[in-house]
Amino acid sequence: MIKVCRRSTFNSAHRLFRPDWSDEKNNAVFDKCNNPNYHGHNYTLEVWVSGEVDPETGYLIDLKILKTIIQKEIIDRFDHRNLNLDCPEFEQLNPTAENIAAVIYRLMREAMDKKYELSITLWETENNIVYFDGK
Amino acid sequence: MIKVCRRSTFNSAHRLFRPDWSDEKNNAVFDKCNNPNYHGHNYTLEVWVSGEVDPETGYLIDLKILKTIIQKEIIDRFDHRNLNLDCPEFEQLNPTAENIAAVIYRLMREAMDKKYELSITLWETENNIVYFDGK
Amino acid sequence: MIKVCRRSTFNSAHRLFRPDWSDEKNNAVFDKCNNPNYHGHNYTLEVWVSGEVDPETGYLIDLKILKTIIQKEIIDRFDHRNLNLDCPEFEQLNPTAENIAAVIYRLMREAMDKKYELSITLWETENNIVYFDGK
Amino acid sequence: MIKVCRRSTFNSAHRLFRPDWSDEKNNAVFDKCNNPNYHGHNYTLEVWVSGEVDPETGYLIDLKILKTIIQKEIIDRFDHRNLNLDCPEFEQLNPTAENIAAVIYRLMREAMDKKYELSITLWETENNIVYFDGK
Amino acid sequence: MIKVCRRSTFNSAHRLFRPDWSDEKNNAVFDKCNNPNYHGHNYTLEVWVSGEVDPETGYLIDLKILKTIIQKEIIDRFDHRNLNLDCPEFEQLNPTAENIAAVIYRLMREAMDKKYELSITLWETENNIVYFDGK
Amino acid sequence: MIKVCRRSTFNSAHRLFRPDWSDEKNNAVFDKCNNPNYHGHNYTLEVWVSGEVDPETGYLIDLKILKTIIQKEIIDRFDHRNLNLDCPEFEQLNPTAENIAAVIYRLMREAMDKKYELSITLWETENNIVYFDGK
Repeated sequence: MIKVCRRSTFNSAHRLFRPDWSDEKNNAVFDKCNNPNYHGHNYTLEVWVSGEVDPETGYLIDLKILKTIIQKEIIDRFDHRNLNLDCPEFEQLNPTAENIAAVIYRLMREAMDKKYELSITLWETENNIVYFDGK
Repeated sequence: MIKVCRRSTFNSAHRLFRPDWSDEKNNAVFDKCNNPNYHGHNYTLEVWVSGEVDPETGYLIDLKILKTIIQKEIIDRFDHRNLNLDCPEFEQLNPTAENIAAVIYRLMREAMDKKYELSITLWETENNIVYFDGK
Repeated sequence: MIKVCRRSTFNSAHRLFRPDWSDEKNNAVFDKCNNPNYHGHNYTLEVWVSGEVDPETGYLIDLKILKTIIQKEIIDRFDHRNLNLDCPEFEQLNPTAENIAAVIYRLMREAMDKKYELSITLWETENNIVYFDGK
Repeated sequence: MIKVCRRSTFNSAHRLFRPDWSDEKNNAVFDKCNNPNYHGHNYTLEVWVSGEVDPETGYLIDLKILKTIIQKEIIDRFDHRNLNLDCPEFEQLNPTAENIAAVIYRLMREAMDKKYELSITLWETENNIVYFDGK
Repeated sequence: MIKVCRRSTFNSAHRLFRPDWSDEKNNAVFDKCNNPNYHGHNYTLEVWVSGEVDPETGYLIDLKILKTIIQKEIIDRFDHRNLNLDCPEFEQLNPTAENIAAVIYRLMREAMDKKYELSITLWETENNIVYFDGK
Repeated sequence: MIKVCRRSTFNSAHRLFRPDWSDEKNNAVFDKCNNPNYHGHNYTLEVWVSGEVDPETGYLIDLKILKTIIQKEIIDRFDHRNLNLDCPEFEQLNPTAENIAAVIYRLMREAMDKKYELSITLWETENNIVYFDGK
């Protein structure tokens, strides 16, 4: 068992709020993250994959293939997008870093062979980080 | 003559486009940065100040004071904002990294004593950087 | 179960030694870290919090609240201090990175709701790191 | 139980290929990493050591000692070397990041007291990372 | 006048030596960098471009275009290559970081409009950096 | 003309104050940096050297030699020291980042051949930086 990781980045706008809450409550809970006109982040993403090394190649997984899957499943979906308005994944789901990490985990989980275990580390800023491994 | 720098960050949404251009032209020039629903960035800002060291204190400028000016003039203005919609500075000005750096330079120039020379370095992403010193 | 992290920094002086040891033994074991006039570090701290995401907010914990707790319990206590002389936590305890991490863990553990699991990662320099999770 | 880490770097040339495969197959699987004249990397290595803190010193392990072991076992062996041509460890083993991490784990495991648990994190580039803990 | 920068990376093998010197002299001058079987680096490159901002677009230069030029002129030429054996630029030129930066400057200078001034910053390791601006 | 840089780090304790000022004035001006028991930093230092590349070696200066000079003149002098108490350079000089950079410039200037121009960049924290080139 070994783990490999591919790091990537995407740049998105978002807003934290619940449409069923009053403005007062949204402001009290989400503060400046509730700006109705959105703000944004450079998200840094690490996708970690666990499994066995193929003795023939010495690869757990070809990182070029992992990069291609991340590009197709995550970057093409979220990069240069407004998570609230452009991404159906967050139509009913507040795009907190926690929820973004869980969505990324689910998307990668569906795209990857079940023989691999996955974990996701997501930097929203250099000081705010989330980790999710589906457990 | 010496230079000191204070680094800070702010997180904003923006969109690159010209309202007087067709959608086709905006897409051709600004590509995915023209997403009508905006995207966003963690901007990293270095404000460099040149001048003479005060022989009494050993400070060129007290960095706590510089930090306070940057907070008031830049961070409070742009952090967790939509540069196009929330910031009058970009009402008539496309918020490219070049233009953001020039606006930050002007705001800092107005707020700082003329005895100091200033320069601005702004990271839009870890790979895209702009420098402006008013010359 | 998910984990979130808040990164912060503090700048402290310290010295590694045991008052019950001879100078020779302190020098042999702690070498230049035993300088009687102290040296110092920019400590970088990650506080990781594990728990369940609140389905209503999408937050595991509001990072503004976590930041406030870290500020009050850790930064206000250790930043711009001499760990040996100013901090009762290290009056009887050698302020190695291991012991600092364990003290930070205990202080955060007492300040945080028991429903969260915690772990601490502490960089003493860019090359020396400690991890502690209370187990 | 606590963990401490020492970070170091080494700069090596390598090539990914199997001598028992055709050029076509090596190119199809290893692509540009199969360049017959080699390419290279600045490898960044974290060696993490788990164990109990010595109550007398407050050290899990003296990081100066850990640094010396890493220097002797890893840096002196692989730094400024061609992993394929200069290092017997990779005479029969394709020097993928996975295999390099496993070799480093084995070398450190043999050099360190069995009372410590070890793990290895190895950056081949800023975007490609491997983790191995011998399990 | 403003400056913009695009950062990129490439991974190469190289060896420092002069074929007209004895092994003794090459070893005395270039030490472990003279390993006959090569070693390698992750080179980090910043290409800075100075000029005037186009008032219509707000761009000094479209960074997508700059990225494409860097990819074609530098990355495709040097990435995953042996600088000594695969790159005619270094057939008669010792691939020190200084010389690599000067070659990159010349290649970029030939590829870019003369209205721009250029400078190159090149990291050979996290501790060794070179800057060249053609003056 | 080209520039090369060697990056290094040192860890020191210091205190900002003037012995000829009252405690009140020292506190008003230097705030928490005036802690009488000192605090400390991991200083990161870049020494940049400008000159001509030796056409024979391709080196502006052998970075191993530059590293040795920095080690002898700067690191051995300031690392794991209390700048106020252990270093005669700061006996009469407040060890602000500006003054430390100027002292490092002077020490390096005296140790280096006059054919080189020098500049110093010094990080006191990841957010506070000073640059000095003797002009």
